[in-house]
Amino acid sequence: MVKYTHILVASDFTDNSGMVIKKAEELAKQMGSHLSLLHVVEPLPGYGYAFVGSAEIELQLVEEAKRQLAKLGKQLNVKDNDQYVEVGPTKIEITRVAEEIGADLIIVGSHGRHGLSNLLGSTANAVIHNADCDVLTVRLKDKI
Amino acid sequence: MVKYTHILVASDFTDNSGMVIKKAEELAKQMGSHLSLLHVVEPLPGYGYAFVGSAEIELQLVEEAKRQLAKLGKQLNVKDNDQYVEVGPTKIEITRVAEEIGADLIIVGSHGRHGLSNLLGSTANAVIHNADCDVLTVRLKDKI
Repeated sequence: MVKYTHILVASDFTDNSGMVIKKAEELAKQMGSHLSLLHVVEPLPGYGYAFVGSAEIELQLVEEAKRQLAKLGKQLNVKDNDQYVEVGPTKIEITRVAEEIGADLIIVGSHGRHGLSNLLGSTANAVIHNADCDVLTVRLKDKI
Repeated sequence: MVKYTHILVASDFTDNSGMVIKKAEELAKQMGSHLSLLHVVEPLPGYGYAFVGSAEIELQLVEEAKRQLAKLGKQLNVKDNDQYVEVGPTKIEITRVAEEIGADLIIVGSHGRHGLSNLLGSTANAVIHNADCDVLTVRLKDKI
């Protein structure tokens, strides 16, 4: 039987990320999988020097992400130590955490051909390129 | 409940594509989904003119693909009219067929960072970029 034992779901807390979370939750339920949550805080852009207060802002972003993830964890019954907030390039952090915790399925949202990601390079694309496990990309419906 | 009603699985008949098929079969079983099979025959490279016999070779490739898909269909209990052999660029044909048949999940293999696809550009990447539905990429273990 196909059974994913440990699912890592990466959420960016955007309006339509609820769909990604919902699918992750229900697939985990169906398959009896362990569920872990991840949010990645992208480092503030560097200008060759740290501007005053940048470290503090980053810290605030991490704290806010932890609060939001804790709220989500409570809804989904995901324990504190299965909630990850990491600082770094999103594409790298998702696959790094997946390997570290031994996830066999990563679930991420994908904006497809309409989103801003089309210009910036898609996180989902980079994740399937780098991941050592299966990846489910949930198609987010962008407002065009 | 998350339920994919119609799963399209694209197979390239390579040695390790069995894993993609197996996962598709079992997920379809678990969710009671309709399953369709697709193999895409890439057009022979054009040199500005058709070389003698190229149309015939393409036809043979299509016939061979149909035979292999029929064999697979029999194993998986997928009816003849849910088996698709298309000629065209793989990336485009997968999403075109998915839209045409109203698939809500596409399953494809991904070679990740080691495969030849790394050089050629990944089919899986193009599919998640263009698809209007969710995509499960199954990580194929390449011989390095």
